[in-house]
Amino acid sequence: MSDHPRKHVVDSTHRTWMDAALEQAEKSWHEGGIPIGSVLVDAQGVIVARGHNERVQSGDPTAHAEVVCVRRAGRRRDWSRLTLVSTLSPCPMCSGTAILHRIPRVIVGENRTFMGAEDWMRHQGIEIVVLDDARCVAWMERMQRERADLWREDIGM
Amino acid sequence: MSDHPRKHVVDSTHRTWMDAALEQAEKSWHEGGIPIGSVLVDAQGVIVARGHNERVQSGDPTAHAEVVCVRRAGRRRDWSRLTLVSTLSPCPMCSGTAILHRIPRVIVGENRTFMGAEDWMRHQGIEIVVLDDARCVAWMERMQRERADLWREDIGM
Repeated sequence: MSDHPRKHVVDSTHRTWMDAALEQAEKSWHEGGIPIGSVLVDAQGVIVARGHNERVQSGDPTAHAEVVCVRRAGRRRDWSRLTLVSTLSPCPMCSGTAILHRIPRVIVGENRTFMGAEDWMRHQGIEIVVLDDARCVAWMERMQRERADLWREDIGM
Repeated sequence: MSDHPRKHVVDSTHRTWMDAALEQAEKSWHEGGIPIGSVLVDAQGVIVARGHNERVQSGDPTAHAEVVCVRRAGRRRDWSRLTLVSTLSPCPMCSGTAILHRIPRVIVGENRTFMGAEDWMRHQGIEIVVLDDARCVAWMERMQRERADLWREDIGM
């Protein structure tokens, strides 16, 4: 039982980071885009980059939230101390991006509406924390209901 | 023996596409960048996008040649009829990009100097053709010799 207080603190921090990722998702939705958001957090818990899916906004099919985040983080050497936070389970491209950069931990908002390549990341030694956040689920359910064709395009279907 | 003439034609076409990818690699090297190039080819054999690594040129760590190529190809629905050609075995990020887009075939210049996530792509049903092209090997050997630190940065080491 002794680790409960620490666990509580960690979970609360995760939730704060997910709030920031959800802000990105909401921003994208209101721009006519796909409501998936992401943030990158450094070893001190400071958010160093924020991003959301920009397929609609920029016409770039590789502009998933996580890729945009890594792109904005720029050239750096502290990847192995960063945490990637995403409102949705990362697709194969985004999972591969985390693996390439040796990001050790990925915090996932939800994987009910879409399961990405979590197993592959785990197999490569990445710690995956799934929050199962109802707000993240709600965004994706709305996306799949109201912008279904755009969603299928985004995941290559 | 009857399939030899057809095989010859296919190989010659592969070589022509690789020439175009090598042009991109050379261009990047002369810009001070990483000499890895890529092209995307449609079902008719027409090159629809070209790209090279742009880490140095743009400061974007996700700007590997293959990602740049897919980005430039833009929003389209014919991914399942495209071929991705790269001078080097695609890293996990680029392999995941091919998987996400359901690109069915990847032609690799060489995998001697760096082995990417070919097994993962094969496991996902992608056909991998390795040309083992000495020109591609020569570029990467020069890269690893003359710009070693930049190379380590590019593959997350």
